[in-house]
Amino acid sequence: MQLFFIAHITDNIAYLTEEEATHCVRVLRHKVGDELTFMDGKGGFYTGKLIQADPKKCALSILTSKQAYGLRSQHLHVAIAPTKNMDRLEWFVEKAVEIGVEEISLIATNRTERSVVKIERLEKIILAAAKQSVKAYLPVINPLVKLKDFLKQDFDGGKFIAHLADDHRKSFQEEIAKADKNLILIGPEGDFTLPEIESAFASHFVPVTLGASRLRTETAGMYACAVASVVK
Amino acid sequence: MQLFFIAHITDNIAYLTEEEATHCVRVLRHKVGDELTFMDGKGGFYTGKLIQADPKKCALSILTSKQAYGLRSQHLHVAIAPTKNMDRLEWFVEKAVEIGVEEISLIATNRTERSVVKIERLEKIILAAAKQSVKAYLPVINPLVKLKDFLKQDFDGGKFIAHLADDHRKSFQEEIAKADKNLILIGPEGDFTLPEIESAFASHFVPVTLGASRLRTETAGMYACAVASVVK
Repeated sequence: MQLFFIAHITDNIAYLTEEEATHCVRVLRHKVGDELTFMDGKGGFYTGKLIQADPKKCALSILTSKQAYGLRSQHLHVAIAPTKNMDRLEWFVEKAVEIGVEEISLIATNRTERSVVKIERLEKIILAAAKQSVKAYLPVINPLVKLKDFLKQDFDGGKFIAHLADDHRKSFQEEIAKADKNLILIGPEGDFTLPEIESAFASHFVPVTLGASRLRTETAGMYACAVASVVK
Repeated sequence: MQLFFIAHITDNIAYLTEEEATHCVRVLRHKVGDELTFMDGKGGFYTGKLIQADPKKCALSILTSKQAYGLRSQHLHVAIAPTKNMDRLEWFVEKAVEIGVEEISLIATNRTERSVVKIERLEKIILAAAKQSVKAYLPVINPLVKLKDFLKQDFDGGKFIAHLADDHRKSFQEEIAKADKNLILIGPEGDFTLPEIESAFASHFVPVTLGASRLRTETAGMYACAVASVVK
């Protein structure tokens, strides 16, 4: 199924984004009268008939609509240190969206070697992955902030830090079952530093382990999504 | 931790593979007397002192040894159709090893667009991922065979097929808990064909779903490993 993304809706008429309109008309060669499936990124899932097929503007008359399509009973927020190799971060983002995640934050830690991340590129990956895996919700992605500033923010629900230092850590899969809203911090290559771990503790983050394996940063982030999907 | 791979052991002396010996001496600049950690790919996990440091041959006097290091209480076998884009298959192999898998088979299905897969390259990825995630067991990888030939083989334990056709499918995470040895078939882009699904049924494979999301081939394979790791 080819799923399109709606820019906005006015009076039962939905408009594709310009980029999608071009793809729809130029590449997929859709014509007036064709029936398409589309979503609004906020849980709205629609079918509609193409009434204007212009490479710059596609308008659809809405035939059916569902709201809260695929709404999950949990809110998972993964805050992850960007990997040195951007492919690995992009891969994490794609897989997290496929498996299920509500929010992704990028955190700059002491051992993070990357100080700039182009959020627009990750937003494109999110959109492509959501369309590919037929999701009506687009996860939120937040730009890179310093860990110490991130920790100052208020968060509801369970707050966890997955670090590797030998410590008395709880099992993420047991802990995550306790709340419907959960935030997990995933460290960089080389792990969080001890002062970072301590400042997370001071902000009431609970140390957790993601299982017996030592996982790479991007694998740990994706695995947290898988655990949440399996457990909840 | 830098983990090395042993080619063979004779009388308490372990020898690195030639490739690792070169890396050990030329890149990491280890010298006689250095203490290294290494594994044999069959569950043996060792420390040893370097007694010969030659780029073609490194010999280590074994100091400590553990057997069945990290042995899992389950045997997970993922049989997967190679993706059109090799990066995605390689990515699956890397992540499966990190998360945990005992055996990987490559199956050629009707909709598989790739007829040749270089197994040596995947073996290198397996070794690198096992070393990176500190594993003493190297998963087995089997060369590409036709699905119909694969289905003729005998397998113990649970046998599952993850297909997308709308069907009465069971939950993989519930089914996998029932046996310690499990095999799951993961289809190609575009899914298994109906005759393929029926021939799997005839070979007593049970249809399963991997959850609410529509996953790409490589994500489905990796997710099956994650489910097995969480559930068992």
